[in-house]
Amino acid sequence: MELLEERIKKDAQVLPGDILKVDNFLNHQIDVPFLSKVCEEFYRLYKDEGVNKILTIEASGIGIACLTAAYFNCPVVFAKKSKSSNIGDDFYSSEIYSYTHGNTNKVIVSKKYIGSADRILIIDDFLAKGNALVGLSDIVKQSGAVLVGAGIAVEKEYQGGGNMLRAAGMRIESLAKIKSMTDDGKLEFTK
Amino acid sequence: MELLEERIKKDAQVLPGDILKVDNFLNHQIDVPFLSKVCEEFYRLYKDEGVNKILTIEASGIGIACLTAAYFNCPVVFAKKSKSSNIGDDFYSSEIYSYTHGNTNKVIVSKKYIGSADRILIIDDFLAKGNALVGLSDIVKQSGAVLVGAGIAVEKEYQGGGNMLRAAGMRIESLAKIKSMTDDGKLEFTK
Repeated sequence: MELLEERIKKDAQVLPGDILKVDNFLNHQIDVPFLSKVCEEFYRLYKDEGVNKILTIEASGIGIACLTAAYFNCPVVFAKKSKSSNIGDDFYSSEIYSYTHGNTNKVIVSKKYIGSADRILIIDDFLAKGNALVGLSDIVKQSGAVLVGAGIAVEKEYQGGGNMLRAAGMRIESLAKIKSMTDDGKLEFTK
Repeated sequence: MELLEERIKKDAQVLPGDILKVDNFLNHQIDVPFLSKVCEEFYRLYKDEGVNKILTIEASGIGIACLTAAYFNCPVVFAKKSKSSNIGDDFYSSEIYSYTHGNTNKVIVSKKYIGSADRILIIDDFLAKGNALVGLSDIVKQSGAVLVGAGIAVEKEYQGGGNMLRAAGMRIESLAKIKSMTDDGKLEFTK
């Protein structure tokens, strides 16, 4: 998506350690008027799929999930990071390793809010090795809901997670796909 | 606001320990079509105040902050909980005690995203003793921005934080004010 790629070129910072910092418009400051246009593209891509619920993960997925849900006229459910090892029977849970933070989070979703009648679209800001997406789709599977697909703002395609999951049959639509990124700030997008 | 009070009566759970659980529509599942109507009220209340930025705190404030920002056509900045004691010179920070979790969080906002040219509206889901609001307004003060006021979904008025801050001169608009709440689930709203 040209609009998002241009914004990344203009405002993202590439930091040592393979970090693409987009806190100017996505991760800390959320440029709502801009991202609302970006999220309309998720709607265009998935509008015929009967999506009735959007699933994301706290914290930085929540903003774009809500802006996307406004087009689908549906609720968002966000997976919470749980500190408790004993979560009881009321939750689905999955373990997600974060490369950014170097730790594993148990994420949970209440059984009250997704179930076998749902057709779920996962929305997230980033896709790299795919750990968050695997964890969220595991929760969807536990719930018996249908996973329609995933909508991702920025995919670091060169890290392979997205294409691995596509090969396994998951529909993933990423609005900006980064083909390569170097520490000196050079970015190349997949067209 | 009648619409929100009705929804609280219908869907909120009162749990022992003075907990009002609204994860059906606000804190875990986010009922975007419903909350978008609720957030329009924040716009009606503050639309003449020249708001150019909305400040909130992760995670559960982000959804309603974004839905409100869509009316104001402005960005959201969300304060992040920082694990690091040394945050450097690039951030404003404040300490916020959480009664819900029984701990103190250092919250940070990049100096890049708020400054003296800004007129800021704070949006949050809950107001009880006022700690989060005090921490966020402290950050606004550090930045030199103007704090236009705060928009709160649910105020536990009987805990006193909101009225203390109003007495100190802060404009706070809460869409549902709980006058009393008992462990057996009885709620009374301030009209």
